[in-house]
Parts: sequence; structure tokens; C-alpha cells
Amino acid sequence: MKELEERIRKDGKVKPGGVLKVDSFLNHQIDPQLLYAMATELKRLYAGVPINKILTVEASGIAIASMVGYVFSCPLVFAKKSKTINISDDVWSADVVSFTHGGTNRVMVSKEYLGAGDCVLIVDDFLATGAALVGLKAICEQAGATVAGAGIAIEKVFQGGGNRLRAEGMRVESLAKIRSMTDNGLEFEN
Amino acid sequence: MKELEERIRKDGKVKPGGVLKVDSFLNHQIDPQLLYAMATELKRLYAGVPINKILTVEASGIAIASMVGYVFSCPLVFAKKSKTINISDDVWSADVVSFTHGGTNRVMVSKEYLGAGDCVLIVDDFLATGAALVGLKAICEQAGATVAGAGIAIEKVFQGGGNRLRAEGMRVESLAKIRSMTDNGLEFEN
Repeated sequence: MKELEERIRKDGKVKPGGVLKVDSFLNHQIDPQLLYAMATELKRLYAGVPINKILTVEASGIAIASMVGYVFSCPLVFAKKSKTINISDDVWSADVVSFTHGGTNRVMVSKEYLGAGDCVLIVDDFLATGAALVGLKAICEQAGATVAGAGIAIEKVFQGGGNRLRAEGMRVESLAKIRSMTDNGLEFEN
Repeated sequence: MKELEERIRKDGKVKPGGVLKVDSFLNHQIDPQLLYAMATELKRLYAGVPINKILTVEASGIAIASMVGYVFSCPLVFAKKSKTINISDDVWSADVVSFTHGGTNRVMVSKEYLGAGDCVLIVDDFLATGAALVGLKAICEQAGATVAGAGIAIEKVFQGGGNRLRAEGMRVESLAKIRSMTDNGLEFEN
């Protein structure tokens, strides 16, 4: 998606350790008109797929997932993070290791809001090692829900998570795919 | 706002200790079409006010703030929560005591994204004791930004935070105002 790639080139900041900061338009300050354009592009990509639920994880996935839900005219559910080890019987849950922060979070979705009748699009702002996506997919599987695929804003292809999931048969659509990232700049993949 | 009141009556659950659970459409599972209707109503209420930035706090405020930003055609910024005591010089920050969870969170906004030129609408899903609103207002004051007012989905009037802020001269618009809440039901204020 050209508009997103141009915005990343213009306002993204490459930090040591393979971190891309897009705090000025996607992660801390957010441009909702850009979110709407991204949601519309995901709707085009998943045209004809009977998606009835959007799933993401707090916090930074919520903004884009809200707009995707709006454009798809269906509810979104965000998995909640918890450090708690005791998980009640009322939730589906999975462990997710954060690439950015290091720590492990248990992420949870109430059984009330995800079940066997659902056809789910998993949405997130970033895809790197794929840990969040694997966790959200596991939650869908526990619930007996169908995973239509994933809709990602920015995939860091060089970290391998997206292509590993594609190799396993999952549909993963990323609106900007970064092939390489150095202090000298970014290279996108088509 | 009638549509929101009716939804609260239909799907909200009153829990002990003055807690209203709206997890099925606002806090865990989210109805984005309802968010859009709420954002449109806030746009009507704040017509003519030169708002150029929406401010909220993670996590549950992000969904509604995204849609408000979209309808107002302006960026939103979400304050990040941190348990960290050491705060860098690059952020505006305030302490917020959570009514629901008890603990105190330091909430922070990068100085890059809030400054003297901004006219801010503070948006949140709930207003109870007003702690989050007071913290976000303090952050705006540190930044030298103008606070146009607040746009709240659900105000629990009986907890006093909204009326205390109004008495101090702040404009607070809440789309559903709950006057009283018992096991027998809810009463709204016009």
C-alpha cells in the first residue's frame, strides 16, 4: 500500500536492534484517516470472505482494529494482557513473548465473545517474529473459530514470522512489507 | 444519547461495588458502528470548537478515541501507562489511580505530540471519580495546550467526578449519564 509505505519513509524512525518507531502516526499519536485507508484496503483484499469478527491484542492493535471493524461492519474483540498465572475457566488464553519489551504476557479473550460460529480476521499494527499472531491464532483454535487470515499494517519480513505462518498455510496480508532495514534506510517488498 | 442508553440497558451488567460491565460492546468486544454514532454526536456537541487533537489513555479509551479522531479529522494521542518511577525529560506525565483496579499508573505523553498550539478534546469510555480526566487535563496543562473539554461515553454521575470538574469550569459532555445504579436497574439523567 503506497500511502503507508510513503508515510513510513517520511515519518518512521529506525532504532538499533531492528526496531521501527512509527509513534507519530501509528503507535502513540495516530492518524485515523490513514487507519481508515488501511481498513478499506484490507476490506478489498478479503472481499468475499465471510468475516464476522476482528481480533486484536491490546494496546497498540486496538486503534487499527476499531477502524477495520467499522469498515467490515462487524465487532472487534481485543485480547487483554495479564501477568496473572491463574486464569479463570471463562477465557481462552495463550502466552505471547513481546519482541519489543522482552517479557511474556498471558493474553486472554472471554469465551462469551469468541466461539465456533466465528470467522475471524486477526489484525495488528506490527508483524515481526509472529508471536502475537501465533497466540491469537491459538486462541481462535481453542474457541473452535475459523481464522480467515491476518491483516497487518507493517510486516518486518526479515524477522521471518509472516513467511513462517504463510508456509503453515495461514493467509497473511500486510499493507507494508519491509524487506530490510538499516541506518541507511528501508527497503520494501512488493 | 438514546442509542447508547438503550444499549447499556440491554447489554450492560451491574456488578457489586458500583461497577458497570459493558464488555459486550465497549470494553472487550466493541461495536464500531456504535462508536461511530458516538463520535458523530460528540462532533455535533463540539461544533465550531477548533479541536485539532484527541487525547485518551490506554487501553480501553483507544477504540472510541480512534473513531472520534476519524470523525473530527484530526490525530489522536493515547497516553501510555507505566509502572516506572523514572520518567524521561521527553514526556508530560501524571499519576492516575484506577477506580476499577485500585492501583496507581503513571500515564505519559511524548512532548513531541502535545504542545502549546493544540486544542484538545479528552476522550474516554468511562467517567467515575474523574481520576483519568484529571490526569489527562494535567498533562495538557503541562504542555501548555488548551483543553476544549471532555467527550465521555458513560458517566457514572453518582461518583461525582464529572460534576466536580464542571464546577471547576471544565466542559464535560457525556453521552450516557447514569444517575443511579442498583441491582434493580439503572436510572439515566438527561
